[in-house]
Amino acid sequence: MSADTDAVVLLSGGLDSATVLAIARAQGLRCHALSVRYGQRHSAELVAAERVAAHLGAASHRIVDVDLRAIGGSSLTDDAIAVPTGGVTAGVIPSTYVPARNTVFLAIALGHAEVLGASQIFLGANAVDYSGYPDCRPAFVEAFEALANVATRRAVEGERMRIMAPIIDWTKGRIIATGASLGVDFSMTVSCYQADEAGRACGVCDSCRLRKDGFEAAGLPDPTPYR
Amino acid sequence: MSADTDAVVLLSGGLDSATVLAIARAQGLRCHALSVRYGQRHSAELVAAERVAAHLGAASHRIVDVDLRAIGGSSLTDDAIAVPTGGVTAGVIPSTYVPARNTVFLAIALGHAEVLGASQIFLGANAVDYSGYPDCRPAFVEAFEALANVATRRAVEGERMRIMAPIIDWTKGRIIATGASLGVDFSMTVSCYQADEAGRACGVCDSCRLRKDGFEAAGLPDPTPYR
Repeated sequence: MSADTDAVVLLSGGLDSATVLAIARAQGLRCHALSVRYGQRHSAELVAAERVAAHLGAASHRIVDVDLRAIGGSSLTDDAIAVPTGGVTAGVIPSTYVPARNTVFLAIALGHAEVLGASQIFLGANAVDYSGYPDCRPAFVEAFEALANVATRRAVEGERMRIMAPIIDWTKGRIIATGASLGVDFSMTVSCYQADEAGRACGVCDSCRLRKDGFEAAGLPDPTPYR
Repeated sequence: MSADTDAVVLLSGGLDSATVLAIARAQGLRCHALSVRYGQRHSAELVAAERVAAHLGAASHRIVDVDLRAIGGSSLTDDAIAVPTGGVTAGVIPSTYVPARNTVFLAIALGHAEVLGASQIFLGANAVDYSGYPDCRPAFVEAFEALANVATRRAVEGERMRIMAPIIDWTKGRIIATGASLGVDFSMTVSCYQADEAGRACGVCDSCRLRKDGFEAAGLPDPTPYR
């Protein structure tokens, strides 16, 4: 365990966080992948996360349970709210927003990083496609970093924790092109909000639409298995 | 659901958070108690939290699961690390510190508050007795409040969220005296790190020592059931 060579990487099983893991690996970091079973609609993305962690050479992969269904308030954690398929509208926060999800994920990652002695946490947040998600904005990442630097034993001892969101202002096309150049096999990743248990995508939810457009923008074939 | 009359109150089952709930109730707030089953050594404190929530007139009480044992790093979440009984030493963070615990708890409370439309979150953090816990300091509470005010839909809409830690600089004696004056029945609360399933305390762990001293300082009989 060495502070400056180890990182915790939040890994959802989607293509953004897979690319972020590849970026962290390309920096020579020992990467501890962390996924969260939070009550999402399907477990295919957690299966995908496990494959991606192994494929990209993560030093470890852990899945932590937190029951955000007990809180609800999102179409991803409350089956009574439908997943939207009508496209993203600028300035409108969609029902797929899960209240405080990235705050919860980063909090768990912070605990994991402290136990491991890691000095960085990588997050696949992206503010461009999902401008509606409050917790995907640079101001959110900065505020969490400030919190992380008072919240822990590490902070008391005067050692910094950095929250890295390297793709936060990238387009989907750039994320895909970069991930591909770093060897990410995107056929392993699952972005669909309502994938089936085999990981096959619906092709019509907002996440599927953005992903499709991203491959087109990157000029790469879309390897997504659709059902 | 009205923003300025509703609060989420983190309730552990111990005496600090019971007093904080009584304080919030005395302000006329509708209080939504929230407890976390995080992998702590015993469930007696969650049973206590349920009793306390009902006793003090909480509008609701919810228990959310998050598995901090997957992370470990504390004598409270890793059975291989012994609970200390030798007394608290100033400036030393004891093994009962759970990495990022209050960050995780506040993150979940933030999601709950957002779904409910509550404008305040109450936390029973106390910096005096546990000066060693990084996430019980005023700077931590301030940093989390700053985070909360960028992290959510509510923040985007320009409505403030306040993180209230009303007893953060109080002595245990003052907490107990105030709680008693507000009608808290402390016999319902469990502070012991290693209580048995009936909620009976060991009497020797640091938490038991601080609690005993607090009743003495408050000049009140200690109603704690010891085993």
